[in-house]
Amino acid sequence: MGTPTREKLLDAGLQLLLERGYNGLGIQELLRTTQAPKGAFYHHFESKQDFALQVVDRYMEEVHQGLKLCLEDDSLPPLERIRRFFELSRDKYSRDGYLGCMLGGLGQELSGTHEAFRTRIEACFAFIADRFADCIEQARLRGEVADSTDPLEAANLLLDCWEGGALRCRLWRDPEPLNRVLDFCFGSLRAEAASTV
Amino acid sequence: MGTPTREKLLDAGLQLLLERGYNGLGIQELLRTTQAPKGAFYHHFESKQDFALQVVDRYMEEVHQGLKLCLEDDSLPPLERIRRFFELSRDKYSRDGYLGCMLGGLGQELSGTHEAFRTRIEACFAFIADRFADCIEQARLRGEVADSTDPLEAANLLLDCWEGGALRCRLWRDPEPLNRVLDFCFGSLRAEAASTV
Repeated sequence: MGTPTREKLLDAGLQLLLERGYNGLGIQELLRTTQAPKGAFYHHFESKQDFALQVVDRYMEEVHQGLKLCLEDDSLPPLERIRRFFELSRDKYSRDGYLGCMLGGLGQELSGTHEAFRTRIEACFAFIADRFADCIEQARLRGEVADSTDPLEAANLLLDCWEGGALRCRLWRDPEPLNRVLDFCFGSLRAEAASTV
Repeated sequence: MGTPTREKLLDAGLQLLLERGYNGLGIQELLRTTQAPKGAFYHHFESKQDFALQVVDRYMEEVHQGLKLCLEDDSLPPLERIRRFFELSRDKYSRDGYLGCMLGGLGQELSGTHEAFRTRIEACFAFIADRFADCIEQARLRGEVADSTDPLEAANLLLDCWEGGALRCRLWRDPEPLNRVLDFCFGSLRAEAASTV
Protein backbone atom coordinates (compact mmCIF):
# COMPACT_ATOMS: atom_id res chain seq x y z
CA MET A 1 0.00 0.00 0.00
CA GLY A 2 1.36 3.43 -0.91
CA THR A 3 2.01 6.00 1.78
CA PRO A 4 -0.37 8.96 1.87
CA THR A 5 2.42 11.34 0.79
CA ARG A 6 3.31 9.24 -2.24
CA GLU A 7 -0.37 9.08 -3.23
CA LYS A 8 -0.83 12.80 -2.76
CA LEU A 9 2.20 13.51 -4.96
CA LEU A 10 0.93 11.20 -7.70
CA ASP A 11 -2.58 12.68 -7.60
CA ALA A 12 -1.31 16.24 -7.77
CA GLY A 13 1.19 15.23 -10.47
CA LEU A 14 -1.59 13.89 -12.63
CA GLN A 15 -3.41 17.22 -12.68
CA LEU A 16 -0.21 19.27 -13.04
CA LEU A 17 1.17 17.13 -15.88
CA LEU A 18 -2.13 17.39 -17.71
CA GLU A 19 -2.13 21.16 -17.38
CA ARG A 20 1.55 22.04 -17.80
CA GLY A 21 3.24 19.06 -19.36
CA TYR A 22 6.45 17.43 -18.17
CA ASN A 23 8.95 20.21 -18.69
CA GLY A 24 6.50 22.74 -17.28
CA LEU A 25 6.10 20.78 -14.03
CA GLY A 26 8.23 22.05 -11.16
CA ILE A 27 9.06 19.74 -8.26
CA GLN A 28 9.02 22.71 -5.86
CA GLU A 29 5.52 23.61 -6.95
CA LEU A 30 4.39 20.01 -6.62
CA LEU A 31 5.69 19.98 -3.03
CA ARG A 32 3.97 23.30 -2.30
CA THR A 33 0.67 22.08 -3.80
CA THR A 34 0.71 18.91 -1.73
CA GLN A 35 2.28 20.51 1.35
CA ALA A 36 4.67 17.57 1.32
CA PRO A 37 7.84 17.92 3.39
CA LYS A 38 11.00 18.86 1.54
CA GLY A 39 12.90 15.72 0.67
CA ALA A 40 9.68 13.70 0.34
CA PHE A 41 9.90 13.66 -3.43
CA TYR A 42 13.26 11.92 -3.70
CA HIS A 43 12.33 9.65 -0.84
CA HIS A 44 9.47 8.26 -2.94
CA PHE A 45 10.78 8.68 -6.50
CA GLU A 46 14.17 8.18 -8.09
CA SER A 47 13.83 11.14 -10.43
CA LYS A 48 11.33 13.39 -12.13
CA GLN A 49 11.18 10.90 -15.00
CA ASP A 50 10.46 8.03 -12.60
CA PHE A 51 7.72 10.14 -11.01
CA ALA A 52 6.06 11.02 -14.32
CA LEU A 53 6.15 7.41 -15.50
CA GLN A 54 4.43 6.41 -12.26
CA VAL A 55 1.81 9.10 -12.90
CA VAL A 56 1.27 7.47 -16.30
CA ASP A 57 0.75 4.14 -14.50
CA ARG A 58 -1.81 5.83 -12.25
CA TYR A 59 -3.56 7.32 -15.29
CA MET A 60 -3.64 3.88 -16.90
CA GLU A 61 -5.27 2.38 -13.78
CA GLU A 62 -8.24 4.64 -14.47
CA VAL A 63 -8.14 3.69 -18.16
CA HIS A 64 -8.17 0.00 -17.23
CA GLN A 65 -11.20 0.52 -15.00
CA GLY A 66 -12.99 2.38 -17.79
CA LEU A 67 -12.14 -0.30 -20.35
CA LYS A 68 -13.40 -3.02 -18.02
CA LEU A 69 -16.58 -1.14 -17.22
CA CYS A 70 -17.41 -0.41 -20.87
CA LEU A 71 -15.92 -3.13 -23.05
CA GLU A 72 -17.16 -6.00 -20.90
CA ASP A 73 -20.71 -4.66 -20.77
CA ASP A 74 -22.55 -7.33 -22.74
CA SER A 75 -25.78 -5.35 -22.58
CA LEU A 76 -24.38 -3.06 -25.31
CA PRO A 77 -23.51 -4.02 -28.92
CA PRO A 78 -19.70 -4.24 -29.33
CA LEU A 79 -19.19 -0.90 -31.13
CA GLU A 80 -21.36 0.88 -28.58
CA ARG A 81 -19.09 -0.40 -25.82
CA ILE A 82 -16.12 1.38 -27.39
CA ARG A 83 -18.16 4.51 -27.94
CA ARG A 84 -19.27 4.41 -24.30
CA PHE A 85 -15.61 4.28 -23.23
CA PHE A 86 -14.86 7.38 -25.29
CA GLU A 87 -17.92 9.13 -23.86
CA LEU A 88 -16.76 8.41 -20.32
CA SER A 89 -13.33 9.79 -21.29
CA ARG A 90 -15.01 12.90 -22.65
CA ASP A 91 -16.90 13.31 -19.38
CA LYS A 92 -13.61 12.98 -17.49
CA TYR A 93 -12.00 15.63 -19.73
CA SER A 94 -14.95 17.87 -18.90
CA ARG A 95 -14.33 17.50 -15.17
CA ASP A 96 -10.62 18.31 -15.74
CA GLY A 97 -11.49 21.52 -17.63
CA TYR A 98 -10.98 20.09 -21.15
CA LEU A 99 -7.23 19.69 -20.91
CA GLY A 100 -7.33 16.69 -23.24
CA CYS A 101 -5.61 13.33 -22.79
CA MET A 102 -2.45 13.00 -20.70
CA LEU A 103 -1.10 10.24 -22.93
CA GLY A 104 -1.46 12.45 -26.00
CA GLY A 105 0.02 15.43 -24.19
CA LEU A 106 3.12 13.63 -22.89
CA GLY A 107 3.47 11.71 -26.17
CA GLN A 108 3.58 14.97 -28.11
CA GLU A 109 5.87 16.75 -25.71
CA LEU A 110 8.41 14.03 -24.99
CA SER A 111 8.57 11.47 -27.78
CA GLY A 112 11.11 13.57 -29.69
CA THR A 113 13.57 13.57 -26.80
CA HIS A 114 12.72 10.90 -24.19
CA GLU A 115 12.75 7.38 -25.53
CA ALA A 116 11.42 6.04 -22.20
CA PHE A 117 8.24 8.09 -22.63
CA ARG A 118 7.91 7.34 -26.33
CA THR A 119 7.90 3.59 -25.69
CA ARG A 120 5.73 3.78 -22.55
CA ILE A 121 3.07 6.01 -24.11
CA GLU A 122 3.00 3.90 -27.27
CA ALA A 123 2.62 0.77 -25.12
CA CYS A 124 -0.41 2.40 -23.43
CA PHE A 125 -2.01 3.21 -26.79
CA ALA A 126 -1.23 -0.27 -28.12
CA PHE A 127 -2.86 -1.83 -25.05
CA ILE A 128 -6.03 0.24 -25.48
CA ALA A 129 -6.15 -0.48 -29.23
CA ASP A 130 -5.84 -4.22 -28.56
CA ARG A 131 -8.84 -4.11 -26.27
CA PHE A 132 -10.84 -2.14 -28.84
CA ALA A 133 -9.84 -4.64 -31.52
CA ASP A 134 -11.51 -7.48 -29.61
CA CYS A 135 -14.81 -5.58 -29.70
CA ILE A 136 -14.40 -4.66 -33.35
CA GLU A 137 -13.83 -8.30 -34.20
CA GLN A 138 -17.09 -9.13 -32.39
CA ALA A 139 -18.80 -6.35 -34.35
CA ARG A 140 -17.36 -7.78 -37.57
CA LEU A 141 -18.71 -11.27 -36.80
CA ARG A 142 -22.14 -9.70 -36.15
CA GLY A 143 -22.01 -7.80 -39.45
CA GLU A 144 -21.95 -4.41 -37.71
CA VAL A 145 -18.76 -3.36 -39.49
CA ALA A 146 -17.64 -4.41 -42.97
CA ASP A 147 -16.37 -7.99 -43.18
CA SER A 148 -13.12 -6.70 -44.68
CA THR A 149 -12.39 -4.53 -41.60
CA ASP A 150 -9.02 -5.23 -39.98
CA PRO A 151 -9.98 -4.98 -36.28
CA LEU A 152 -6.62 -3.75 -35.01
CA GLU A 153 -6.22 -1.24 -37.82
CA ALA A 154 -9.73 0.13 -37.16
CA ALA A 155 -8.97 0.24 -33.43
CA ASN A 156 -5.81 2.27 -33.95
CA LEU A 157 -7.66 4.56 -36.31
CA LEU A 158 -10.40 5.25 -33.75
CA LEU A 159 -7.80 5.97 -31.10
CA ASP A 160 -5.76 8.27 -33.34
CA CYS A 161 -8.78 10.28 -34.50
CA TRP A 162 -9.89 10.55 -30.87
CA GLU A 163 -6.50 11.90 -29.83
CA GLY A 164 -6.74 14.56 -32.54
CA GLY A 165 -10.16 15.51 -31.19
CA ALA A 166 -8.67 15.59 -27.67
CA LEU A 167 -6.02 18.07 -28.81
CA ARG A 168 -8.63 20.30 -30.41
CA CYS A 169 -10.91 20.12 -27.34
CA ARG A 170 -7.89 21.36 -25.36
CA LEU A 171 -7.58 24.31 -27.71
CA TRP A 172 -11.31 25.01 -27.73
CA ARG A 173 -11.99 24.11 -24.07
CA ASP A 174 -15.08 22.46 -25.47
CA PRO A 175 -16.24 18.88 -26.15
CA GLU A 176 -17.48 19.54 -29.70
CA PRO A 177 -14.35 18.23 -31.46
CA LEU A 178 -14.68 14.97 -29.51
CA ASN A 179 -18.35 14.53 -30.37
CA ARG A 180 -17.62 15.30 -34.04
CA VAL A 181 -14.91 12.63 -34.18
CA LEU A 182 -17.17 10.04 -32.52
CA ASP A 183 -20.14 10.70 -34.80
CA PHE A 184 -17.97 10.57 -37.92
CA CYS A 185 -15.87 7.53 -37.05
CA PHE A 186 -18.64 5.32 -35.68
CA GLY A 187 -21.04 6.44 -38.41
CA SER A 188 -18.46 5.59 -41.09
CA LEU A 189 -17.57 2.19 -39.65
CA ARG A 190 -21.25 1.26 -39.59
CA ALA A 191 -21.95 2.71 -43.04
CA GLU A 192 -19.20 0.57 -44.55
CA ALA A 193 -20.98 -2.51 -43.21
CA ALA A 194 -24.34 -1.36 -44.56
CA SER A 195 -22.94 -0.68 -48.03
CA THR A 196 -21.35 -4.14 -48.31
CA VAL A 197 -24.34 -6.18 -47.10
CA MET B 1 14.44 41.80 -45.02
CA GLY B 2 15.51 39.90 -41.90
CA THR B 3 19.14 39.79 -40.88
CA PRO B 4 20.92 36.47 -41.42
CA THR B 5 21.26 35.89 -37.67
CA ARG B 6 17.54 36.34 -37.10
CA GLU B 7 16.76 33.92 -39.94
CA LYS B 8 19.26 31.38 -38.64
CA LEU B 9 17.71 31.53 -35.17
CA LEU B 10 14.20 31.06 -36.55
CA ASP B 11 15.25 28.14 -38.76
CA ALA B 12 17.05 26.37 -35.94
CA GLY B 13 14.15 27.16 -33.59
CA LEU B 14 11.73 25.46 -35.93
CA GLN B 15 13.62 22.17 -35.79
CA LEU B 16 14.34 22.41 -32.06
CA LEU B 17 10.73 23.26 -31.13
CA LEU B 18 9.50 20.35 -33.21
CA GLU B 19 11.88 17.97 -31.50
CA ARG B 20 11.88 19.24 -27.90
CA GLY B 21 8.86 21.44 -27.50
CA TYR B 22 8.80 24.90 -25.97
CA ASN B 23 9.85 24.18 -22.40
CA GLY B 24 12.53 21.79 -23.61
CA LEU B 25 14.12 24.45 -25.83
CA GLY B 26 17.12 26.18 -24.28
CA ILE B 27 18.20 29.59 -25.53
CA GLN B 28 21.86 28.73 -24.82
CA GLU B 29 21.58 25.63 -26.96
CA LEU B 30 19.90 27.59 -29.73
CA LEU B 31 22.79 30.06 -29.70
CA ARG B 32 25.33 27.22 -29.74
CA THR B 33 23.53 25.46 -32.62
CA THR B 34 23.46 28.61 -34.71
CA GLN B 35 26.86 29.93 -33.52
CA ALA B 36 25.08 33.21 -32.95
CA PRO B 37 26.89 35.76 -30.77
CA LYS B 38 25.77 36.00 -27.15
CA GLY B 39 23.19 38.74 -26.85
CA ALA B 40 21.93 38.14 -30.39
CA PHE B 41 18.77 36.47 -29.14
CA TYR B 42 17.45 39.40 -27.15
CA HIS B 43 18.58 41.80 -29.84
CA HIS B 44 16.17 40.12 -32.26
CA PHE B 45 13.41 38.85 -29.96
CA GLU B 46 11.67 40.31 -26.93
CA SER B 47 11.40 37.01 -25.12
CA LYS B 48 11.35 33.27 -25.62
CA GLN B 49 7.59 33.49 -26.12
CA ASP B 50 8.00 36.18 -28.78
CA PHE B 51 10.60 33.99 -30.48
CA ALA B 52 8.41 30.86 -30.49
CA LEU B 53 5.41 32.78 -31.81
CA GLN B 54 7.61 34.05 -34.65
CA VAL B 55 8.68 30.46 -35.34
CA VAL B 56 4.98 29.61 -35.60
CA ASP B 57 4.64 32.43 -38.15
CA ARG B 58 7.55 30.95 -40.07
CA TYR B 59 5.93 27.50 -39.95
CA MET B 60 2.68 29.01 -41.22
CA GLU B 61 4.47 30.59 -44.18
CA GLU B 62 5.27 27.06 -45.34
CA VAL B 63 1.69 25.99 -44.67
CA HIS B 64 0.40 28.91 -46.74
CA GLN B 65 2.66 27.93 -49.63
CA GLY B 66 1.46 24.33 -49.41
CA LEU B 67 -2.19 25.39 -49.28
CA LYS B 68 -1.76 27.65 -52.29
CA LEU B 69 0.10 24.97 -54.26
CA CYS B 70 -2.46 22.26 -53.55
CA LEU B 71 -5.87 23.87 -52.99
CA GLU B 72 -5.64 26.15 -56.02
CA ASP B 73 -4.65 23.31 -58.35
CA ASP B 74 -7.70 23.13 -60.60
CA SER B 75 -6.33 20.06 -62.37
CA LEU B 76 -7.37 18.00 -59.32
CA PRO B 77 -10.92 17.38 -58.03
CA PRO B 78 -11.53 19.45 -54.86
CA LEU B 79 -11.18 16.64 -52.31
CA GLU B 80 -7.98 15.45 -53.98
CA ARG B 81 -6.51 18.93 -53.50
CA ILE B 82 -6.91 18.63 -49.74
CA ARG B 83 -5.55 15.11 -49.76
CA ARG B 84 -2.55 16.32 -51.76
CA PHE B 85 -1.88 18.97 -49.11
CA PHE B 86 -1.87 16.30 -46.40
CA GLU B 87 0.40 14.10 -48.51
CA LEU B 88 2.89 16.94 -48.90
CA SER B 89 2.73 17.48 -45.14
CA ARG B 90 3.41 13.78 -44.62
CA ASP B 91 6.42 14.03 -46.93
CA LYS B 92 7.67 16.99 -44.92
CA TYR B 93 7.24 15.05 -41.66
CA SER B 94 9.29 12.28 -43.26
CA ARG B 95 12.15 14.68 -44.00
CA ASP B 96 11.99 15.93 -40.38
CA GLY B 97 12.23 12.37 -38.99
CA TYR B 98 8.51 11.92 -38.27
CA LEU B 99 8.33 14.41 -35.42
CA GLY B 100 4.73 15.25 -36.30
CA CYS B 101 3.16 18.69 -36.60
CA MET B 102 4.58 21.68 -34.75
CA LEU B 103 1.12 23.22 -34.31
CA GLY B 104 -0.15 20.05 -32.67
CA GLY B 105 2.96 19.76 -30.53
CA LEU B 106 2.90 23.32 -29.20
CA GLY B 107 -0.90 23.24 -28.90
CA GLN B 108 -0.69 20.17 -26.67
CA GLU B 109 2.20 21.41 -24.60
CA LEU B 110 1.19 25.01 -24.02
CA SER B 111 -2.55 25.48 -24.32
CA GLY B 112 -3.07 24.57 -20.65
CA THR B 113 -0.76 27.33 -19.44
CA HIS B 114 -0.06 29.91 -22.19
CA GLU B 115 -3.15 31.67 -23.48
CA ALA B 116 -1.10 33.42 -26.19
CA PHE B 117 -0.18 30.05 -27.71
CA ARG B 118 -3.65 28.58 -27.29
CA THR B 119 -5.22 31.42 -29.27
CA ARG B 120 -2.44 31.58 -31.88
CA ILE B 121 -2.37 27.83 -32.56
CA GLU B 122 -6.17 27.70 -32.74
CA ALA B 123 -6.12 30.63 -35.18
CA CYS B 124 -3.70 28.65 -37.38
CA PHE B 125 -5.95 25.59 -37.34
CA ALA B 126 -9.03 27.73 -38.00
CA PHE B 127 -7.29 29.35 -40.99
CA ILE B 128 -6.39 25.96 -42.49
CA ALA B 129 -9.89 24.58 -41.86
CA ASP B 130 -11.43 27.60 -43.59
CA ARG B 131 -9.35 26.94 -46.70
CA PHE B 132 -10.30 23.26 -46.66
CA ALA B 133 -13.97 24.20 -46.26
CA ASP B 134 -13.90 26.10 -49.58
CA CYS B 135 -12.78 22.92 -51.35
CA ILE B 136 -15.30 20.77 -49.51
CA GLU B 137 -18.08 23.14 -50.56
CA GLN B 138 -16.92 22.74 -54.18
CA ALA B 139 -16.91 18.97 -53.70
CA ARG B 140 -20.42 19.18 -52.27
CA LEU B 141 -21.67 21.13 -55.27
CA ARG B 142 -20.15 18.48 -57.55
CA GLY B 143 -21.81 15.68 -55.58
CA GLU B 144 -18.48 14.28 -54.39
CA VAL B 145 -19.49 14.51 -50.75
CA ALA B 146 -23.01 14.16 -49.32
CA ASP B 147 -25.23 17.17 -49.94
CA SER B 148 -25.87 17.41 -46.20
CA THR B 149 -22.15 17.83 -45.42
CA ASP B 150 -21.33 20.97 -43.45
CA PRO B 151 -18.09 22.05 -45.17
CA LEU B 152 -16.47 23.72 -42.16
CA GLU B 153 -17.40 20.90 -39.83
CA ALA B 154 -15.96 18.33 -42.24
CA ALA B 155 -12.84 20.49 -42.65
CA ASN B 156 -12.26 20.64 -38.89
CA LEU B 157 -12.86 16.91 -38.65
CA LEU B 158 -10.24 16.15 -41.32
CA LEU B 159 -7.75 18.40 -39.59
CA ASP B 160 -8.39 16.92 -36.14
CA CYS B 161 -8.11 13.32 -37.33
CA TRP B 162 -4.91 14.27 -39.17
CA GLU B 163 -3.44 15.76 -36.00
CA GLY B 164 -4.17 12.53 -34.15
CA GLY B 165 -2.38 10.62 -36.90
CA ALA B 166 0.51 13.09 -36.64
CA LEU B 167 0.86 12.36 -32.92
CA ARG B 168 0.87 8.62 -33.56
CA CYS B 169 3.40 8.95 -36.40
CA ARG B 170 5.63 10.76 -33.89
CA LEU B 171 5.30 7.81 -31.51
CA TRP B 172 5.85 5.24 -34.27
CA ARG B 173 8.38 7.23 -36.30
CA ASP B 174 6.43 5.94 -39.26
CA PRO B 175 3.90 7.37 -41.75
CA GLU B 176 1.39 4.53 -41.45
CA PRO B 177 -0.93 6.32 -38.98
CA LEU B 178 -1.13 9.27 -41.38
CA ASN B 179 -1.95 7.09 -44.39
CA ARG B 180 -4.57 5.21 -42.36
CA VAL B 181 -6.30 8.46 -41.37
CA LEU B 182 -6.28 9.74 -44.96
CA ASP B 183 -7.69 6.52 -46.43
CA PHE B 184 -10.43 6.32 -43.81
CA CYS B 185 -11.49 9.97 -43.79
CA PHE B 186 -11.49 10.57 -47.54
CA GLY B 187 -13.02 7.15 -48.19
CA SER B 188 -15.81 7.87 -45.71
CA LEU B 189 -16.56 11.36 -47.03
CA ARG B 190 -16.89 9.93 -50.56
CA ALA B 191 -18.90 6.90 -49.42
CA GLU B 192 -21.47 9.17 -47.75
CA ALA B 193 -22.01 10.88 -51.11
CA ALA B 194 -22.33 7.55 -52.94
CA SER B 195 -24.88 6.24 -50.44
CA THR B 196 -27.11 9.31 -50.74
CA VAL B 197 -27.12 9.58 -54.56
